Amino acid sequence: MKIDDLLQATKEELFPARYEHTLRVMETAIQLAKQINGLETEKVAVAAVLHDFCKCWPTIKLSQWIEHELNNLDLLLYDKELWHAPVGAEVVRSRFGVEDEDILNAIRFHTTGRPNMSILEKVIFIADVVEPGRSFPGVDELRSLANSNLNQAILTSLNHTIRFLLDKGKKIYPLTLETRNALLDTLVKDKKEE
Amino acid sequence: MKIDDLLQATKEELFPARYEHTLRVMETAIQLAKQINGLETEKVAVAAVLHDFCKCWPTIKLSQWIEHELNNLDLLLYDKELWHAPVGAEVVRSRFGVEDEDILNAIRFHTTGRPNMSILEKVIFIADVVEPGRSFPGVDELRSLANSNLNQAILTSLNHTIRFLLDKGKKIYPLTLETRNALLDTLVKDKKEE
Repeated sequence: MKIDDLLQATKEELFPARYEHTLRVMETAIQLAKQINGLETEKVAVAAVLHDFCKCWPTIKLSQWIEHELNNLDLLLYDKELWHAPVGAEVVRSRFGVEDEDILNAIRFHTTGRPNMSILEKVIFIADVVEPGRSFPGVDELRSLANSNLNQAILTSLNHTIRFLLDKGKKIYPLTLETRNALLDTLVKDKKEE
Repeated sequence: MKIDDLLQATKEELFPARYEHTLRVMETAIQLAKQINGLETEKVAVAAVLHDFCKCWPTIKLSQWIEHELNNLDLLLYDKELWHAPVGAEVVRSRFGVEDEDILNAIRFHTTGRPNMSILEKVIFIADVVEPGRSFPGVDELRSLANSNLNQAILTSLNHTIRFLLDKGKKIYPLTLETRNALLDTLVKDKKEE
């Protein structure tokens, strides 16, 4: 399927403000990817366009998908904000025939990350956080980090998320923590090898 | 084994300041337990006296125990501060013949907690945090919470720990997070049933 067709289908699935966000994530992700050898712009664009495909679905539709189509009932015990990503991966697989596991993983893990993320997964994760429409304390520092050190940028973003959830008294999804722990190990290892 | 013999053996195993801490944990735990029906003072005293039994062991000795005697090599990937508790449970089992799993669990999980802690586990966990020698921002609020709502007190303490590790850029042990998530679920459930 061509990117323009995916854009059109996504536009029909999202509220207008969410579609505008999607366009900005695509631009930001492509910009970041230009600095990285071997990352195809086409793949980046497809993952970015589809990353929030199910973001505007009603909660009940998401929970039904999780119950019937995903092998991860635990997810229902955590914040609804996490549901659209893994559901989205399965929906775009069946609806558009996306079979590239790297693209599907970039969609699936764009809110939690996971240990050992691919470069594409990292680019989509951080483009979602720093696209020019985002505004929160520290976003400029994060934008600059995204250009210089993807791992450090994702770690900083996860730290923000965990603090936010602590402040709100909400549960923290274990995978969010595992991603942070794994990034800390990677950064320590990178430092030793410098 | 009599409590006086356990105290003497513990005294010989710990640096003096740590032994003093142990005595204060014992007093605090017994005090807390008096408010709780059906919790035997004897059990509380044994768990409190032995909770830090291996706290002053050299790192290498702790890591060897974890490697050879515990079925949890993952632990070696996390902060050394966590090691003495699970090692301690096994050491007091073999050295003093402690077979009461509730006492062993109170020792084993006194730094991380775990989902579905017993009352004894909760008492030892929180007595360790609020004994009168402790001094940190918020400790008075925690002392008062420990007397009114054990779950809320442990949750608050885990929140402190997680924030501390975020500030220090250190990894967070997954079980610490799982304990916090489970307590949040319990507190929401308790509120609904009120």
